[in-house]
Amino acid sequence: MNIRLLIEYDGASFCGWQRQSNGPSIQAEIERVIERVTGRAIPIQGAGRTDAGVHARGQVASFIVDSNIAAHRWSHVLNDHLPRTIRIVKSDEVAQNFHPQKHAVAKEYEYLILNRPVAGALNPRVYFVPRPINWARVGEALPQFLGEHDFKAFQGARATVLNTVRTISSFTLVQRGDGYYAFRVVGNGFLKQQVRAMAGTLVEIGLGKRDIGDIERILRSKDRKQAGHTAPGCGLTLIRVYYPGE
Amino acid sequence: MNIRLLIEYDGASFCGWQRQSNGPSIQAEIERVIERVTGRAIPIQGAGRTDAGVHARGQVASFIVDSNIAAHRWSHVLNDHLPRTIRIVKSDEVAQNFHPQKHAVAKEYEYLILNRPVAGALNPRVYFVPRPINWARVGEALPQFLGEHDFKAFQGARATVLNTVRTISSFTLVQRGDGYYAFRVVGNGFLKQQVRAMAGTLVEIGLGKRDIGDIERILRSKDRKQAGHTAPGCGLTLIRVYYPGE
Repeated sequence: MNIRLLIEYDGASFCGWQRQSNGPSIQAEIERVIERVTGRAIPIQGAGRTDAGVHARGQVASFIVDSNIAAHRWSHVLNDHLPRTIRIVKSDEVAQNFHPQKHAVAKEYEYLILNRPVAGALNPRVYFVPRPINWARVGEALPQFLGEHDFKAFQGARATVLNTVRTISSFTLVQRGDGYYAFRVVGNGFLKQQVRAMAGTLVEIGLGKRDIGDIERILRSKDRKQAGHTAPGCGLTLIRVYYPGE
Repeated sequence: MNIRLLIEYDGASFCGWQRQSNGPSIQAEIERVIERVTGRAIPIQGAGRTDAGVHARGQVASFIVDSNIAAHRWSHVLNDHLPRTIRIVKSDEVAQNFHPQKHAVAKEYEYLILNRPVAGALNPRVYFVPRPINWARVGEALPQFLGEHDFKAFQGARATVLNTVRTISSFTLVQRGDGYYAFRVVGNGFLKQQVRAMAGTLVEIGLGKRDIGDIERILRSKDRKQAGHTAPGCGLTLIRVYYPGE
């Protein structure tokens, strides 16, 4: 059986989605629990890596298992052993050839900013910017990201992807009240740290450090040094992965 | 100078707003810091007590101080020494006779519920109800709370208030997506644990344990045992305290 998992996690206590040697990862935690339950080391495939500190409400992963546990029961079985900062929201059976990364047609991210003089007591999953941002400027600049572009200038260092062309189908700014502002972005795929570099560049435009028209120039340059800072991972949440027919 | 504070706090690590002997309170934390800054023990007045575990985005308090610190600087001065789970969002000077509790004309609370089979990894400030709630039933029942009523049946045990008549001017249910539902309630004042008892009763109606028309009967009974359970404090947030002219 090929079991698909819908996963929510608080990235604060993990070094990212992917299994690695320098700290606990979400992938390794789930694989550890699957091994505990089945007695076998079974690798899971994720829809994409998230960086250290990045959260998810709708990460997707899958694994092939031979077991008499019903597909919808896997969420409960795994949750019983996972830390509270990782929850399997749903589990179901998918086709044998389903691959969460290769078959994904789009992803949706949210980047949350708290923009007021004083930090928050309630929400640690936010990028706190105390200096006043001109949000009208940000809203004016933002549509430059829409459509198909070579996003090489917004790709994190040491990335190894060859094709850096991606398409952004939706990019909106939502004011939540009390100083909270969220970027919601949907695209057919994102480069390493792309959303965070786009958020950092938009913040710099809002702070008056950059011209509103800078984004088109940065895209053309294909030079990471031209774009703004990489906004911190704590403000980023993977909201949803889309598959054909959804 | 009479300094007014607008306060945000995560109630999880406190035994409530009010100073008490069995654990750390928000009031005691702020008074400790004021004493550290001024060298004097100065009591602060809050707009109202919040129970253990209850949060605030807009608690109001004030204190009389003779100091050369400008009114708007107090938020920064106090934040420098307060734990991160308490933030003074704003400070300003008010009239000498301003009293945050006596002059309050209304308060607004939010009660947040996560209603899905699996608990959340991201938001601990929520009442998790795994069994499916019929939210249409809840929405139908809720208007019975509107207007002026004797809320004695919704008052927590060992409360000492004599007049238990209060007026609720607004009570709405907001669906947030992904299983999150919020009650927003505005009233001229609330009895001890009143919002939590109202939330608990509405949840029981939504679970089919009670009739939709139960609330009017419970109000008439003035008997705490007739109302539903007290929903946990972790789901409750004091959003705002209203003063004349606001």
